[in-house]
Amino acid sequence: MSSWYAVSAPEDDIVVSTRIRLARNLSGMPFPARMSADQRRELNARVKKAITESNTPFAKTLKYIDMKNVPQTEIMAMVERHVISPEFASGNEERAIILSDDESISIMIGEEDHIRIQVIMGGLQLEKAYDIAERLDTLLYDTLHFAFDRNLGFLTECPTNLGTGLRASVMLHLPVIESSGEISQLADSVGKIGFTVRGMYGEGSKPAASMYQVSNQITLGISEKNALDNLKIITQQLIDKERSERKNLNRIKVEDTCFRALGILENARLLSGEEMMNLLSRIKLGMSMGIIKSEVMPVKLLIEGQPYMLMKKYGQIEADERDIYRANCIREAFGQ
Amino acid sequence: MSSWYAVSAPEDDIVVSTRIRLARNLSGMPFPARMSADQRRELNARVKKAITESNTPFAKTLKYIDMKNVPQTEIMAMVERHVISPEFASGNEERAIILSDDESISIMIGEEDHIRIQVIMGGLQLEKAYDIAERLDTLLYDTLHFAFDRNLGFLTECPTNLGTGLRASVMLHLPVIESSGEISQLADSVGKIGFTVRGMYGEGSKPAASMYQVSNQITLGISEKNALDNLKIITQQLIDKERSERKNLNRIKVEDTCFRALGILENARLLSGEEMMNLLSRIKLGMSMGIIKSEVMPVKLLIEGQPYMLMKKYGQIEADERDIYRANCIREAFGQ
Repeated sequence: MSSWYAVSAPEDDIVVSTRIRLARNLSGMPFPARMSADQRRELNARVKKAITESNTPFAKTLKYIDMKNVPQTEIMAMVERHVISPEFASGNEERAIILSDDESISIMIGEEDHIRIQVIMGGLQLEKAYDIAERLDTLLYDTLHFAFDRNLGFLTECPTNLGTGLRASVMLHLPVIESSGEISQLADSVGKIGFTVRGMYGEGSKPAASMYQVSNQITLGISEKNALDNLKIITQQLIDKERSERKNLNRIKVEDTCFRALGILENARLLSGEEMMNLLSRIKLGMSMGIIKSEVMPVKLLIEGQPYMLMKKYGQIEADERDIYRANCIREAFGQ
Repeated sequence: MSSWYAVSAPEDDIVVSTRIRLARNLSGMPFPARMSADQRRELNARVKKAITESNTPFAKTLKYIDMKNVPQTEIMAMVERHVISPEFASGNEERAIILSDDESISIMIGEEDHIRIQVIMGGLQLEKAYDIAERLDTLLYDTLHFAFDRNLGFLTECPTNLGTGLRASVMLHLPVIESSGEISQLADSVGKIGFTVRGMYGEGSKPAASMYQVSNQITLGISEKNALDNLKIITQQLIDKERSERKNLNRIKVEDTCFRALGILENARLLSGEEMMNLLSRIKLGMSMGIIKSEVMPVKLLIEGQPYMLMKKYGQIEADERDIYRANCIREAFGQ
């Protein structure tokens, strides 16, 4: 099955992906930060059992992966594919995940919370992604007993997740809003209504490829439905704004920018990660605006050009060869 | 017949062109700066007659052109093709030239001196170009009486041309010497032995496309042969230096630079004259080093992408459309 980033999806001219994350903890067990290795193994086993014993067709699409059996390169490549968090990847204790074939569903066991359910899909698909996450939540809840407080809701390690434990986010490609210098103003205004704007690789990451992740910050005193509805409204406003600003661009200038990016990607022999991301961002803009016709999937390439994804493809690569392999990988994708 | 810049020539991996210029004045006539319109017309007529009446096969390949009959765009395009000087183009008095079909031979009548014989050829062809200039000189001398002093040699308006009236120059493509920051040092050392280094469009012009014109400064007390021999020695040293420095380049970096230039030229929708020249310079380097295989002739394109050459091809172009037409012209040349 193809990954979420390798298929087309609703509104994907601007919305790169939708992500739903639910944080859950088992009652009667300490939070992961205070767990012994034995307790970690027990946690892993209980979650694994909950999936396998549910015996539903849905559960059968999921596989349990003991991270001990996964090579370090593949673990880092999973971070680059957004399957697991960087924090989870760098942990050295007993780690396990539950993963669907297409990697749209992943459950990290023993990250910050006992269970982190993640559903990631291409384009704008908040309801659909949330439905899947909820099914997983229900499936696990059938067997496991989640720590839940009548007043506070789901209990989580970090108080910012308390309540619904829901983090819903959309990754938006906003090159024109960005180039008109409106991002910080936008971050301020969505911040006031409980949403946050970040770069592509989560908290503290620098924006790259003009991609911005908008997500809810408030999980307490608001229903899941309200959080999703609000995010959808904000997203739609940003989509409309980006689309309308695109229409006002100087056509020949944007064509020039997009085609130059194409020319460099098709020809460069050395390509840094940052430059690749910025050029692919222009390709995405050009394709969305009907300027560039290509079978290439810019977001897919952007992920495949990350360092560990390159090593997955080409084997061990020294740091000083990385830009060469990246350039080769990209040229090949563009049929050169 | 093809122009000098559209055929391959000796050493043209580095030597773009060879130019010989002889300054001559008719005795018994004031220098052009002090001539009346009548005297100018008389000068034009005498030179025209000298050519037509010589009746040799060589003379028959030359045509007399009254600049009054040449549209202003074409006059400026002639400057861009190095057929006439910018000073001659901007003069508004009676102007005429003698020109060969391939434009390798031109005689400006009434520029700074009465007669400026120019022979321009691709690559390094000092003897050949000088031979042709000398034939023209002899041909004209048969009919016209040149101002000549037994001690000073040929008399010229400017004392810097006095003696042989010879300016021999080679245009060299020195991207690697340039990038290693050695040009000014080089200009100093050739300056000490009576040679000068300038940009592509003559005196005071900024270097563009890593092209440098090396020419003799001394015309008095030195024979033509010595001047040519010395220039040839200097040129050969510069060729050797540039070639050997090319061998020491980091191969992948130079490939990257050259292919990026190709990618931009094949794709840009807006291209300034300066950027075009710098990118074509990289294409020339890439082709000389066997990195880029192409039928394209970078020096030819560099001339064809100049503003008036573009207007010659596309008709009147507004200043703000020039970069669009230039980009189109270049893409077309690269078969895009």
